[in-house]
Amino acid sequence: MTKQSMLAVVKANAAPGVELQTIPVPKPKAGELLVKVKAASICGTDISIYDWTPWAEGHIKPPIVIGHEVVGEVIEINPSVGSGQAVYAEDIKIGDLVSSETHIFCGSCYQCRIGNRHICENMELFGIGRNGGFAEYETIPIRTSCKNDRSVSIEWMSTQEPLGNAVHVVTKANVAGKRVVVFGLGPTGLCAVAAAKAFGAREVIGINRGEYRRKLGKSMGCDATYDELPKTLVNQCDVVLEMSGNKECFTQALEAVRIAGTMIAFGIPKAEVSLNVGKYLINKEMTIASVFGRRIWEPWYQVSDLLKSKKVNLGKIITHEFKLKEFEKAMEIMKSGKCGKILLRP
Amino acid sequence: MTKQSMLAVVKANAAPGVELQTIPVPKPKAGELLVKVKAASICGTDISIYDWTPWAEGHIKPPIVIGHEVVGEVIEINPSVGSGQAVYAEDIKIGDLVSSETHIFCGSCYQCRIGNRHICENMELFGIGRNGGFAEYETIPIRTSCKNDRSVSIEWMSTQEPLGNAVHVVTKANVAGKRVVVFGLGPTGLCAVAAAKAFGAREVIGINRGEYRRKLGKSMGCDATYDELPKTLVNQCDVVLEMSGNKECFTQALEAVRIAGTMIAFGIPKAEVSLNVGKYLINKEMTIASVFGRRIWEPWYQVSDLLKSKKVNLGKIITHEFKLKEFEKAMEIMKSGKCGKILLRP
Amino acid sequence: MTKQSMLAVVKANAAPGVELQTIPVPKPKAGELLVKVKAASICGTDISIYDWTPWAEGHIKPPIVIGHEVVGEVIEINPSVGSGQAVYAEDIKIGDLVSSETHIFCGSCYQCRIGNRHICENMELFGIGRNGGFAEYETIPIRTSCKNDRSVSIEWMSTQEPLGNAVHVVTKANVAGKRVVVFGLGPTGLCAVAAAKAFGAREVIGINRGEYRRKLGKSMGCDATYDELPKTLVNQCDVVLEMSGNKECFTQALEAVRIAGTMIAFGIPKAEVSLNVGKYLINKEMTIASVFGRRIWEPWYQVSDLLKSKKVNLGKIITHEFKLKEFEKAMEIMKSGKCGKILLRP
Amino acid sequence: MTKQSMLAVVKANAAPGVELQTIPVPKPKAGELLVKVKAASICGTDISIYDWTPWAEGHIKPPIVIGHEVVGEVIEINPSVGSGQAVYAEDIKIGDLVSSETHIFCGSCYQCRIGNRHICENMELFGIGRNGGFAEYETIPIRTSCKNDRSVSIEWMSTQEPLGNAVHVVTKANVAGKRVVVFGLGPTGLCAVAAAKAFGAREVIGINRGEYRRKLGKSMGCDATYDELPKTLVNQCDVVLEMSGNKECFTQALEAVRIAGTMIAFGIPKAEVSLNVGKYLINKEMTIASVFGRRIWEPWYQVSDLLKSKKVNLGKIITHEFKLKEFEKAMEIMKSGKCGKILLRP
Repeated sequence: MTKQSMLAVVKANAAPGVELQTIPVPKPKAGELLVKVKAASICGTDISIYDWTPWAEGHIKPPIVIGHEVVGEVIEINPSVGSGQAVYAEDIKIGDLVSSETHIFCGSCYQCRIGNRHICENMELFGIGRNGGFAEYETIPIRTSCKNDRSVSIEWMSTQEPLGNAVHVVTKANVAGKRVVVFGLGPTGLCAVAAAKAFGAREVIGINRGEYRRKLGKSMGCDATYDELPKTLVNQCDVVLEMSGNKECFTQALEAVRIAGTMIAFGIPKAEVSLNVGKYLINKEMTIASVFGRRIWEPWYQVSDLLKSKKVNLGKIITHEFKLKEFEKAMEIMKSGKCGKILLRP
Repeated sequence: MTKQSMLAVVKANAAPGVELQTIPVPKPKAGELLVKVKAASICGTDISIYDWTPWAEGHIKPPIVIGHEVVGEVIEINPSVGSGQAVYAEDIKIGDLVSSETHIFCGSCYQCRIGNRHICENMELFGIGRNGGFAEYETIPIRTSCKNDRSVSIEWMSTQEPLGNAVHVVTKANVAGKRVVVFGLGPTGLCAVAAAKAFGAREVIGINRGEYRRKLGKSMGCDATYDELPKTLVNQCDVVLEMSGNKECFTQALEAVRIAGTMIAFGIPKAEVSLNVGKYLINKEMTIASVFGRRIWEPWYQVSDLLKSKKVNLGKIITHEFKLKEFEKAMEIMKSGKCGKILLRP
Repeated sequence: MTKQSMLAVVKANAAPGVELQTIPVPKPKAGELLVKVKAASICGTDISIYDWTPWAEGHIKPPIVIGHEVVGEVIEINPSVGSGQAVYAEDIKIGDLVSSETHIFCGSCYQCRIGNRHICENMELFGIGRNGGFAEYETIPIRTSCKNDRSVSIEWMSTQEPLGNAVHVVTKANVAGKRVVVFGLGPTGLCAVAAAKAFGAREVIGINRGEYRRKLGKSMGCDATYDELPKTLVNQCDVVLEMSGNKECFTQALEAVRIAGTMIAFGIPKAEVSLNVGKYLINKEMTIASVFGRRIWEPWYQVSDLLKSKKVNLGKIITHEFKLKEFEKAMEIMKSGKCGKILLRP
Repeated sequence: MTKQSMLAVVKANAAPGVELQTIPVPKPKAGELLVKVKAASICGTDISIYDWTPWAEGHIKPPIVIGHEVVGEVIEINPSVGSGQAVYAEDIKIGDLVSSETHIFCGSCYQCRIGNRHICENMELFGIGRNGGFAEYETIPIRTSCKNDRSVSIEWMSTQEPLGNAVHVVTKANVAGKRVVVFGLGPTGLCAVAAAKAFGAREVIGINRGEYRRKLGKSMGCDATYDELPKTLVNQCDVVLEMSGNKECFTQALEAVRIAGTMIAFGIPKAEVSLNVGKYLINKEMTIASVFGRRIWEPWYQVSDLLKSKKVNLGKIITHEFKLKEFEKAMEIMKSGKCGKILLRP
């Protein structure tokens, strides 16, 4: 028997901070699932929402339940009634443990129709543009639900999205046999280290200002870590992954790339960066590609493989765990940078 | 007011031939459209079905209405009721002119989920595994319906699938600036000639035994045509498109490819071919890629562009037109090879 | 009988301007050709050298004979004597008409050895780092000489490098079936328009401030031209070629790219550009690739094909012709922007 | 002081077998090195030459010194005197330990000029078309010499070519995150197992008839080995590497590939294979690519990285060692299949 009301972390007003509220348990619309949340994890985006950055202001209309990295149990299924091109999910049943892809694609725009659903032209974002999963219950579309393999732990299930990002980044860069530098060892950067190793990088170097995360970098597979790019690596790196969203790192990343090398932009600097087109882009004939989310669903399969085979151990980067009601405490540690992933339990 | 019964070309028995029958107008199931057929065209596959080849025997369970290259008007829409990941078609309405993608994908297998719906693991084939469109009415899934732009003629709308095949073949081969040889100037081969020209081939050469189709080849853009591969072209062709399904042509195609060149296999020989791995594959370090249908939906967009801009003139290859009830006469000409596409009108 | 002295355009001092000087005819070193110049053309780089920009200051040690787009007749061959991995040019003989690849690669660095000779780590630049071809005679390495097909006119032979750049740009972008926007309709931009058309672009749009060059753009194949990016094209272009080296154009180019699109950076802005990583790179998941020179020698073959088949008519962009001794007059027009290529005759 | 005469393994007549002969030490021509052989290893090709197969008959004009996998010390350098495009080797000096690339490219054909030197149109083969290295001394072109890093053992230096093949095969297939099946666990197949693992394959399965080599397969990284393709793997393998040159394996390889998968053909069956185009190529829309030798020089750098970092341990597949004069004994074991690589010492 589902409860009538539940605890949720709500962005209540267009201002910094969030509120813990008791609100009604949501009802799944046609084509949606009702899910009892088992675990959730805090993403860097959740800090932006908390702090009410310009980005948050542009994307969120309070009140909204936040949180998008979530795993839970299917409690109720409301089948879809549409005019549409039905694409059925893998036979999801009551009791299944499902994660949700944050990028809720429309399925009918040009990008969706040619196979790029992760960059849908009419994207809705879970926990940002609609109610999310830092709550006891959540509703998610069936079409963006991913059924988990029960051999993977609940904790790991809740942290698949950053590993999915990392797999998409690393696949796009083609790291096999290459020297890879990762700027920014936050959770997604740490996943990129592990994914680069698993996908055949010859050498993986991590760059991060704080020592705490450099240590995590080593544990996830970095051959070496530095607080900034050493001179000896300038123009010496085949593949450079910019996962920090830090302006200075973006420039250092351009410095690091070797002639004919590749840089993947993933982190989003708060301000515009300055780019010397001639010196970096042209003279090195380098390529800057970028990654937005994860392709749907290829990286989810790859993540599942990496977790089931234990080639990537997400346990090493899940450093803290809190009750949902202790959200403020969790956010404080999250902002300190002295953590990996922080888990929330309803 | 829709009629109760209609004329249809039916594969009635597991034997050569077809029957013209009067059967009930079908009713669209959930997620399907009822379409009043405006025009249809005969595909090489329809000859196999007519002749009851081993391939046909393996794919068809009579009785079945045949025909899969069809355009018609939407008469009725039955919205889907599913448990599923709805991916909505572009807002299809009563009165729209729609074509149907023959490959009816499931949407939930691995290939569908990673974006390869055209090679779905549980494919159903329109006009082969379920009733098709050589009839006055047809039902098609909303999810495999493609709404046509009204600036394109009805005749061209009915012949988009072979051009879609051709676009997929030519895109996979990357023909820009290259010398391209096309083996087999049937309708799809002729479309490949036109698509290769439109997509920047330096030179397009057509090989076909019959003179009738070599002439069509010239009109679609061939710089030269031959009845078989001339000695001067052995090892001299960057890209070779095998569109004939002829055993000898397959070997000649391997002969034609230059060192490091690419061959695309599209035609299906009736028997196994003999392959000298060392001489062709290894010593030339060549690649044989293959094409099954068309990606869904990218080539449909490309086809629409080519038709709207008139860069490809399908009118040149639509050489005959018959009433549906004259099907036997149409099939006779189809089998003679002295035709391009043959149109049927209900 | 070769003359003892010759006329040459010399960058004599570390300051703006050049001098017309009479200097000794050079002697070819081991591995070099002596070439009697037939025609040369002025490149944008020559303006930078003339004006003594910071770039010129960083690359040139006066005195040096300038000019690198040149065609001439082989007068003398001095065979190489080296310790080395000889890679022989196509049998060059006295009397042949040769063009020179400006990028004089070393052949022994990592990039040269893996096949990227055009981005050699020890590049020497003809007419920049060593004496060039705005003169009656020039010496060029045999290994960077390209023998011309005599069916092509002398005028076109001298203007192959910008078309080679364009072919490399267009090939890297893969334009077949796509909407392409070219920013900057200087000679290389104009060549990019023609190459994009030849290589199968669906639609080519040219952006240039000056009307003179927009007209040239139309004559080279633009479907439309504008003085700046129209609002209707924002986020609507599959491929964007930034050939202007203009800061504002670089930003407009980023605006123009559609989701999942590609931009090629070729022009070099004089100052750093400001880049909104989130808005452009990440949110559109676009790719910025870049081009430095031309691959060696693939684009030279492609250029030769385009010229021999007359698919590209370089005559339309060769708008002026001067005697070598009229260099100052030629440079004046070059700087006005009211010209295409300007030819010099010794 | 170099000796005047030396021991060599000579294909003396157009018939099965070889002879141990004492012949004059060769003199390096212009552009060649004289090398004192330190170690050599026997390749499958050497068996064909020994047995005088049709292939050998077509490629060899006796008498010729056989052997092409060799490492030795530079004794004498004869600089080149040519008319040519010199591309200098990395500064090779007397005393250096060099290996030779078997594929002696011309440097001036179309393929060489566009960067495909390994598939040169005028290839000369070391130890096949000219005297090789199963001898006390050999001469090799400077341009196909590769200077070894002294941190790698002499034994490993002599066995770089099969690992180079393997790296080229694995790179072409893009194995990161994929299930890879290797047919044929001879030395190159074993190298492919190790390279696939190093370059990020998720799972590597080896297929080989003989148990001896299946054990070697396990030691080089196979997750599982079988004597033939198990039913459970039919249509289940992302990447299939056909390294056996066995006719039946070629067909099993086609069976193994999953929809949209890739097969790399490397082994050369003695007779033509039978290919069901429809069932395998088309219906799975699979790609068959092929590999001839190794790109020059990229895989040599990758091999050097793998050996220096010890990510690949070639020691495990060097199972036997003989004196040059014991060649017949070595060949006997080689033909038994109960060996990995066999080393020869002069």
